[in-house]
Amino acid sequence: MNMNICLMPGDGIGPEIVTQAVKVLEKVAKKFGHTVQTETALIGGAAIDAAGNPLPEATVAACKAADAVLLGAVGGPKWDTIDPAIRPEKGLLGIRKALGLFSNLRPAVLFPELAAASYLRPDIIGQGLDIMVVRELTGGAYFGEPRGETVVNGERAAFNTMIYSESEIERIVRVACEIARKRGKKLCSVDKANVLDVSRLWREVAIRTAAEYPDVALSHMYVDNAAMQLIRDPSQFDVIVTENLFGDILSDEASIITGSIGMLPSASMGSGGPALFEPIHGSAPDIAGQDIANPLATILSVSMMLRFAFGLEKEAAAIDAAVKTVLAKGYRTGDIYVGEGEKVGCSAMGALVLDAI
Amino acid sequence: MNMNICLMPGDGIGPEIVTQAVKVLEKVAKKFGHTVQTETALIGGAAIDAAGNPLPEATVAACKAADAVLLGAVGGPKWDTIDPAIRPEKGLLGIRKALGLFSNLRPAVLFPELAAASYLRPDIIGQGLDIMVVRELTGGAYFGEPRGETVVNGERAAFNTMIYSESEIERIVRVACEIARKRGKKLCSVDKANVLDVSRLWREVAIRTAAEYPDVALSHMYVDNAAMQLIRDPSQFDVIVTENLFGDILSDEASIITGSIGMLPSASMGSGGPALFEPIHGSAPDIAGQDIANPLATILSVSMMLRFAFGLEKEAAAIDAAVKTVLAKGYRTGDIYVGEGEKVGCSAMGALVLDAI
Ligand SMILES: CC(C)[C@H](C(=O)O)[C@@H](O)C(=O)O
Ligand SMILES: CC(C)[C@H](C(=O)O)[C@@H](O)C(=O)O
Repeated sequence: MNMNICLMPGDGIGPEIVTQAVKVLEKVAKKFGHTVQTETALIGGAAIDAAGNPLPEATVAACKAADAVLLGAVGGPKWDTIDPAIRPEKGLLGIRKALGLFSNLRPAVLFPELAAASYLRPDIIGQGLDIMVVRELTGGAYFGEPRGETVVNGERAAFNTMIYSESEIERIVRVACEIARKRGKKLCSVDKANVLDVSRLWREVAIRTAAEYPDVALSHMYVDNAAMQLIRDPSQFDVIVTENLFGDILSDEASIITGSIGMLPSASMGSGGPALFEPIHGSAPDIAGQDIANPLATILSVSMMLRFAFGLEKEAAAIDAAVKTVLAKGYRTGDIYVGEGEKVGCSAMGALVLDAI
Repeated sequence: MNMNICLMPGDGIGPEIVTQAVKVLEKVAKKFGHTVQTETALIGGAAIDAAGNPLPEATVAACKAADAVLLGAVGGPKWDTIDPAIRPEKGLLGIRKALGLFSNLRPAVLFPELAAASYLRPDIIGQGLDIMVVRELTGGAYFGEPRGETVVNGERAAFNTMIYSESEIERIVRVACEIARKRGKKLCSVDKANVLDVSRLWREVAIRTAAEYPDVALSHMYVDNAAMQLIRDPSQFDVIVTENLFGDILSDEASIITGSIGMLPSASMGSGGPALFEPIHGSAPDIAGQDIANPLATILSVSMMLRFAFGLEKEAAAIDAAVKTVLAKGYRTGDIYVGEGEKVGCSAMGALVLDAI
């Protein structure tokens, strides 16, 4: 198979971690008889600096022409005071919308080797943790219209619209059901149906859609309770499906409790077009360029890419196994180092994974 | 002083815990030479059953006529399938709006005696935890108009409006600044200004308002990051101020990490009229009527009432001290029992606090 990948290294540690991940991709491809072609495109702050725009037209075109997209990270203090209309994040939101990436898969997994790094009490985390958060990514308050500023009773007021249509809800619940079916067969839909109209439709459509998957057990939880339950008893969850803003909050919460946020990949997919893969963590400008960032989340994003974009299960498993091997040998980047094993930098970690493949 | 209190026991364990809290209030009043008059009003499911309406007019009138309101809890499975327009929660939302209770104070405090019950890793919680979440309570998507259902491209869509005016933001930030000034002098304003227009106005007004409090150090955090930081390093927070929906999620998250959610009170205040005090926890229908609920959060809500509604600091401190004494002696209700001390029920716990005053 030939894989045509668009790389968007982005800002901060983005370029370093993407470099390592591409090496891993190329090695796996070679080993299994595939070929890889890459093209690099600008996004975020890097694109603002080079082109005055966080998402140049050429980037959208390059992504659309690719089979899959690998993103590093965007943003940093350098662009914090910039006109909101062209902030680095606009690049991220823009490419999600342009590629129709409505489904964001964020696994929150505890790597047994890193259990000591989890922030939860050992007896809670001891029961393991393997949650898949399926976040709707192109709807809700992120993109809802109308939005902006107005004048109410003589003073300024600003507003956004949380809106979902039936088909938007249905397609993301369907994705979540398909995933749940291949895992623990439990799906928890998170909403705020006791307060929000948009959540009541969400719940109604979730029930209707999940009914087509009788092997999947659907439950519902209010978002405030979900924020608690993730801490109180995370092992109760298998797959969580929720809307954009709730998913933003809950997926970050779910990933931090693993203690391994530098390890967690994500996939953003649409219906048919190229999907986008990226680490969950941010651009970490404070450690950029020092060769100490953790490339494993990006490397595991390549594994997700092979699995979800190309259906290359064996190839993906080879990467997962290599990462496990390296962790088992005790190698750690600074963010996951908790006093044991050997501390290594970004390129050294990349090389170790490469060797283990 | 004569204190005219409206009691709304509500549903589930509400009546039991309010009964204990009233006894404590009466004892403290007597000890310090005050008098208490109480009136009881219907709210939530109890009001639906009795009057077909979760917030009868008579309840609103009784609350408005009181100096302060003490609420138990509302809701339960019995009313889960009821017409959304008259759900028990509508009573709660309605009374907040009717009394103009725009500021919701939710302390997340770790009781040293209960440190073992915290869900976080001991070394993280070891640094202590004393956060005050100041949640805006009458704005945002909870009440924003327009809201409802519409038809978009031939299919149903549902929507809510997240909206804040300058004055709504200013008054809640002011409350938070005043509180921060009396505590650790740090205020973290939580928003999603990288995505939402409403958050950008929030941040602008927060900066402008907090500038009048030069002794308070203002910082800003995105809500997804705040959900992580509460777990990663909760002791970095002193006072958090945020909008209604984010506050709903983050205050629940902050309280669960203490492991003492059955211990945490809250206050909801407006500008001038009667304030409302209630435990953070819910109506726990599964244990209602068994005399095993934890009355301490409601008892501590009475302490907040004395302090915030009546300025009776000594009286409030007497309750706080009595609760500490009872905990130090090892008495625990089931929810905070972690293998040590003596397990007691709801009325026994109330009696113990009464004795300790
Ligand atoms: C950077 C920001 C716009 C983005 C989001 O809110 O979606 C990020 O938090 C994420 O979760 O990918
Ligand atoms: C019951 C519900 C309407 C309410 C809210 O969302 O405000 C509750 O969660 C709370 O936090 O007091």
